[in-house]
Amino acid sequence: MDRLGGAGFLTDNRDTAPFTRDWLNNYGAPPLGVARPASTEDVAATVGIAQTHGLVVVPQGGNTGLNGGSVLGDGQQGIVLSLGRMNRILSIDTLGLTATVEAGVALGTLHEVLADQGLGFPLHLGSEGSAQIGGLVATNAGGSHAFRFGMMGDLVLGLEVVLSDGRVWNGLRSLVKDNAGYSLRRLFCGAEGTLGIVTKAVLRLRPAERARATALLALESLEDALEVGQRVRGDAGETLAALEFFPEAGLALALKHIPELRRPFETPYPFYLLAELATSVEAAPVDAVLETCLGHALEAGSVGDALIASNGTQRTAFWRLREEMPEGQRLEGPQLKHDVSVPVSSLPAFVAEAITAVNAVLPGVCVNPFGHLLDGNVHFNLSPPQGCSGFEGLEKGLTEAVYEATTRHQGSIAAEHGLGQAKVDLADRFRPTVERELMTRIKLALDPDGRLNRGKVVRA
Amino acid sequence: MDRLGGAGFLTDNRDTAPFTRDWLNNYGAPPLGVARPASTEDVAATVGIAQTHGLVVVPQGGNTGLNGGSVLGDGQQGIVLSLGRMNRILSIDTLGLTATVEAGVALGTLHEVLADQGLGFPLHLGSEGSAQIGGLVATNAGGSHAFRFGMMGDLVLGLEVVLSDGRVWNGLRSLVKDNAGYSLRRLFCGAEGTLGIVTKAVLRLRPAERARATALLALESLEDALEVGQRVRGDAGETLAALEFFPEAGLALALKHIPELRRPFETPYPFYLLAELATSVEAAPVDAVLETCLGHALEAGSVGDALIASNGTQRTAFWRLREEMPEGQRLEGPQLKHDVSVPVSSLPAFVAEAITAVNAVLPGVCVNPFGHLLDGNVHFNLSPPQGCSGFEGLEKGLTEAVYEATTRHQGSIAAEHGLGQAKVDLADRFRPTVERELMTRIKLALDPDGRLNRGKVVRA
Repeated sequence: MDRLGGAGFLTDNRDTAPFTRDWLNNYGAPPLGVARPASTEDVAATVGIAQTHGLVVVPQGGNTGLNGGSVLGDGQQGIVLSLGRMNRILSIDTLGLTATVEAGVALGTLHEVLADQGLGFPLHLGSEGSAQIGGLVATNAGGSHAFRFGMMGDLVLGLEVVLSDGRVWNGLRSLVKDNAGYSLRRLFCGAEGTLGIVTKAVLRLRPAERARATALLALESLEDALEVGQRVRGDAGETLAALEFFPEAGLALALKHIPELRRPFETPYPFYLLAELATSVEAAPVDAVLETCLGHALEAGSVGDALIASNGTQRTAFWRLREEMPEGQRLEGPQLKHDVSVPVSSLPAFVAEAITAVNAVLPGVCVNPFGHLLDGNVHFNLSPPQGCSGFEGLEKGLTEAVYEATTRHQGSIAAEHGLGQAKVDLADRFRPTVERELMTRIKLALDPDGRLNRGKVVRA
Repeated sequence: MDRLGGAGFLTDNRDTAPFTRDWLNNYGAPPLGVARPASTEDVAATVGIAQTHGLVVVPQGGNTGLNGGSVLGDGQQGIVLSLGRMNRILSIDTLGLTATVEAGVALGTLHEVLADQGLGFPLHLGSEGSAQIGGLVATNAGGSHAFRFGMMGDLVLGLEVVLSDGRVWNGLRSLVKDNAGYSLRRLFCGAEGTLGIVTKAVLRLRPAERARATALLALESLEDALEVGQRVRGDAGETLAALEFFPEAGLALALKHIPELRRPFETPYPFYLLAELATSVEAAPVDAVLETCLGHALEAGSVGDALIASNGTQRTAFWRLREEMPEGQRLEGPQLKHDVSVPVSSLPAFVAEAITAVNAVLPGVCVNPFGHLLDGNVHFNLSPPQGCSGFEGLEKGLTEAVYEATTRHQGSIAAEHGLGQAKVDLADRFRPTVERELMTRIKLALDPDGRLNRGKVVRA
């Protein structure tokens, strides 16, 4: 590892500590070292050395994942390969609307640089200050704007990837249309670094937004939220940029633990809906369209109360209510997170069924189901029952109850966070045999020794 | 093949003829028979029988492909498996905005059924009356609206696929977000039936368009077209639905051979641009936005002339000028088609370079470069020089000249039509060794015997 230099390969426990455990401190065995390459060639050389010594290589971006995908599994001999030093924005094509970046660029940094040029990259998620492009590609990240603009894989035009044998695949194309063979790019997106290590990406940009309009709605039920959401989608059409739902349980946790947040409506309602319209057309009347949306929804009688943000400060305040919920729940104490999706029309039935199911396992368990309405994507997060300090050892049963309900509704047990090591055994249990076998064959075809992020996504 | 019934397995030459040769009558060896299964189980059984007898299986949809992907290669012993009888629309979810369809549904039929329900499926291409969903998935079809709504692969949420061993992968999910493992769905999209046979698909729908605005612009050069296109994109934002360019050479061919077409401007211009805005927002002023677009473009001095369609008849007339060009060129006589893409900003330089290159091979060759501006997707089609009846045996040199220019500009030699059998050797020549090897490994992992559409996409 000499070629990486002193700062490029860390072995001292104090130095490796920040790279060893995952974001939630649930996963991560000590690595033999942390490689911090500064170039694709260094990444390739590191993988080559790992191959020589029979070591597992765990690629790591911002280490913001929730399923232990970016840290070593228990009992594994291996190294963490952090991409954080490869953090250059290599080029921005303002005519072709593409950016070529290294894997270690933080999403928030990219947003800032693009904003200065009147451009945007339409991926938005809570961890964007730390999350890095390489990790976002590897996990095919989603977020609040995915139903309009797509997930990370939809926003990637080209990739450079270091393969399990240390060779480099240069697929750094800036093409919207490319059908010259299998879509390797799409295969690497969401493969969680188990098929190759993403070192660079060509991203598809958008003209910056010129106007936004944001409302917060109070609703009696998730059924009503879905009905209202459908109306809003019908009226807002292509300008609809986000439609986020969250329950009073989650709002209460955020208000309790984050003092500067304020309750938006005088009285609590069972559910809330954050709707945002956005446009890059100068003359598009998104404010008027939003008023039409709300007018129709209020007429139909399914909205309890509604607020429109009249300025950026109010908009930010609405979004903070939604985005600080995970932090509020974290500060409350132990929690069990689930990131699932179901067909949109099954969302209310699924949530009701899952609530019943987890209560059968642990009566009184506190349920905070929130997420992205039109993706059918629910973060079905649990806190212990009132007055309890934990889940009484019932974590496994609770999680299985959630995933069984998900599977009954033809849903996915990993919507936007990936499988990591947390869900790989459960995924194997819930996926059809044929599917598991196809994935295993792909893993073996591209990484026959299981060198790359072993034990994630699929057991080979 | 008894289980398929009499109409389900054709062996008489008169019956198999329509399935034997490709659309342009360039490719296709006689099959031992044409299987026409009516169900997934029949497809699986057919593949199983082919396995037993060591036969190649060539899946075929509407047989509208241009590269011989849906017919047998020379010297192959095999059967054509036509999906045309599996033509049911199984369900439409108006809340979740999805449709589940069998592979043999024609795209045009789907458009009609959806229009009756106020819904749309935003894939549009010239052959939509015949092209079938399964083939569109297998080739990851593009078309004129892809830069806004995505290619076919972007519009598919779930698939059912019959594998090379006759087993069925049921991935018929209706989920926008699903990161539970490798994206098998995306791998089968664009694999041209070489990894599995698509039998059903879940498609992502959109609310129907409520208004459109269409203009035809006359321009002095492709450089000007790109400059104007960039302005239009900036003004039209998310409402921009299509931006098609075509040269006078192509317009002249269409006008010459299709009598009911009329020249749109008094004098010819070197290039034309068809711009269409579309919205599903009731109040969105697309007419006004289009006028703003044109106003800005005219002010900048780069537009020679412009027409706005004042009604549906005029809109249709504009589109026919663009869409009848291939037919006009076909009627002119022999032609050489190329479907390539380059980074958008390289488009004018690429076209100029490729024109020089083909003229060096065959002086005076007639070049008709048209396509989808913001995808950088050029159909670089050739007709013989004035007064010549053919290409004087120089087809190979002409094609290589086009692909060499494409490759110099980091483009793709197969943008939206796939590789089929026409381009597989050339693709192998132009793609990096590492890329070819990755594709070969994937082919071998999923179809070790080369049962499915052998000789297409990649030589294993």
